[in-house]
Amino acid sequence: MALPPSPAPATFETQRRVEFADTDMAGVAHFTRFFQYMEEAEHAFLRSRGLSVVMRWNGQELGWPRVAASCEYFRPAFFEDVLTVRLHLTNVGRKSLTYTAEFYRGTELIARGQVTTCCCRMEPNGRMTAIELPEEIRQKLLGS
Amino acid sequence: MALPPSPAPATFETQRRVEFADTDMAGVAHFTRFFQYMEEAEHAFLRSRGLSVVMRWNGQELGWPRVAASCEYFRPAFFEDVLTVRLHLTNVGRKSLTYTAEFYRGTELIARGQVTTCCCRMEPNGRMTAIELPEEIRQKLLGS
Amino acid sequence: MALPPSPAPATFETQRRVEFADTDMAGVAHFTRFFQYMEEAEHAFLRSRGLSVVMRWNGQELGWPRVAASCEYFRPAFFEDVLTVRLHLTNVGRKSLTYTAEFYRGTELIARGQVTTCCCRMEPNGRMTAIELPEEIRQKLLGS
Amino acid sequence: MALPPSPAPATFETQRRVEFADTDMAGVAHFTRFFQYMEEAEHAFLRSRGLSVVMRWNGQELGWPRVAASCEYFRPAFFEDVLTVRLHLTNVGRKSLTYTAEFYRGTELIARGQVTTCCCRMEPNGRMTAIELPEEIRQKLLGS
Repeated sequence: MALPPSPAPATFETQRRVEFADTDMAGVAHFTRFFQYMEEAEHAFLRSRGLSVVMRWNGQELGWPRVAASCEYFRPAFFEDVLTVRLHLTNVGRKSLTYTAEFYRGTELIARGQVTTCCCRMEPNGRMTAIELPEEIRQKLLGS
Repeated sequence: MALPPSPAPATFETQRRVEFADTDMAGVAHFTRFFQYMEEAEHAFLRSRGLSVVMRWNGQELGWPRVAASCEYFRPAFFEDVLTVRLHLTNVGRKSLTYTAEFYRGTELIARGQVTTCCCRMEPNGRMTAIELPEEIRQKLLGS
Repeated sequence: MALPPSPAPATFETQRRVEFADTDMAGVAHFTRFFQYMEEAEHAFLRSRGLSVVMRWNGQELGWPRVAASCEYFRPAFFEDVLTVRLHLTNVGRKSLTYTAEFYRGTELIARGQVTTCCCRMEPNGRMTAIELPEEIRQKLLGS
Repeated sequence: MALPPSPAPATFETQRRVEFADTDMAGVAHFTRFFQYMEEAEHAFLRSRGLSVVMRWNGQELGWPRVAASCEYFRPAFFEDVLTVRLHLTNVGRKSLTYTAEFYRGTELIARGQVTTCCCRMEPNGRMTAIELPEEIRQKLLGS
C-alpha cells in the first residue's frame, strides 16, 4: 500500500539589505543579525500564508518561542549587500516547526541557519504552554 | 609513556541583567540577545586573560569572526532578570576556539549556547585570512 | 512668606562598557546606543528608588512611553570604553518626567542627552493613557 | 540685485515595516528604533543620489558621524505596521547636513525626528576630522 505523498516542504524567498546599524567595527554584519534576518524571513513567509507570528486561535493568544537556533557562517556580509534569504519549512511537527535559511549574495552561499519554534498558548501570567499545532494553521503553513 | 595532562578547560563566569531594550512584545528577552550575552561574556573572559577581541599581533590586526553559533532555549528570560553566564572554553584548535555558555537564573538553567570563532588576520582590503593561533595567545587563553 | 524649598533634582550615576555589538563599521559606538545607555541608566535609577519601569499601581499596569528624546554628540565612544552616565531627573511634571544624561569617558564629556517620558496606564487593548504621576511614586523619585 | 533662488530642499520617501525584533515588552516599537529607521531612510536617499554613507573622495575615506539627533513621539508604532518615512534634507551647511523625518502610519503622523551629521575625513588612527562638503557631493545631494 502506497504511503500518502508527503507534502513538499514550503519554500519562501525574500531579500534583505545589510543596513549600517547591522555592521560592527570589523566592518561586516554582526553575526547575531543573521538570526534576525532569518526571523524577518519567517514572518514574511507567515504573512504570505495569511498568518502572523502574533495570532489568536479560538480566543487564545498564540506565540512561537524559539526552542533552538543555529547558524554557520561561510563568508562575511558587508554594508549595503542585498542578501537573498531562502527559507525552507523543513519540519512540521506536532507542536513545533523547523525552518532552514540559506543566505546568498548573488549566487554565493554566505551562511546557513536553522531555527525550531514551538506553538504555544500565551498564559495570562506571561508564561507559555506548548500546544498542538491547530490543523487550520498546519494547512496554511503547508500551502494546501 | 604517559601523555602530558591536557589543560583543564578555562571557565569564566559573569552576570548580565536583561535590559528593557532586550525584550520583545512577547514580554521576554529576544532570542538573538542570548548570542549577544554570550559574546559579551567571551570578551569579558578575554579581558580577564589580558587579551581583547580586537588585538594586534606582530604588527598584524587580528579578528575573531564566527564560524558557527547555536543556542538551545529551555526557559524564557524576563526584564530585570540577572542572568549568570557560565562560559567554558571547550576547544582550543589550531586556528579556532569553541566556547560553550550556560545561562542561569539563580540555579535554573534557562539556555545553553555554543560559538566557534576563528583566529584571522585582517587584510587591508577588509578581508580576513584564517591563521594559526599564536602560541602566546594560546597560553594566555589556557591560563598557563 | 517663603516658598518651600524646591527639592534638589535627583542625580544618579552608573557605568556602561561599550560592547562589540554596540559598534558600527566606523569603529565607534553607533549613535542610537546612547539612547539605550540613557534608558539603562534611567531604569537603574528607578531600581535605586525602589521602583521599576514596569510597575503596577492600584491594580493598574503603568508604563513610561517616550514623548521626546535627543542627544548631542561631542566625541565618539570606542569599543571597551567604560562610560560614566550621569543622570539628572531635571523635571517632575504633573504627568511626565524629564531626564538629562551626560556621558563621560574619564573626565571628558563625550555626549549629552535628554528624554521626556510620560506616566501612562496600559489599557487592556494595548493602548496607553497618560495619567497624573501617583504621589507615592513622585515621592520616591524625589528621594523624599 | 536678486539673490539666486535657493534650491528646494530634497525630499525622499521610503517605507519600513516594524519587525518583531523592533518591539519591546510594552508591545510597541522601541523608541530607539525610530533613529535607526531615520538612518536607513537617509542611506536610501544617498543611494538614490548615487552616493553612499561610506564613500571615498579624492583618495580619502569620508564618514558622516552624528552631531545631534532628536525625535518627538506622538503615537506608538506596532508590530507589522508599515511606516512611511518622509525625509527632508532641510539644511546643507558648509560642513554638515540636517535631515528631518516624518513617520506616518497611513495618513497619521506618529513621530517626527531630526538628525545633523557632519562631513568628516576618516584618519588612519580611527579619528575623524570635519571637512568642507565637497562641491560634487553637494550638487548630488541637492539633485542639481
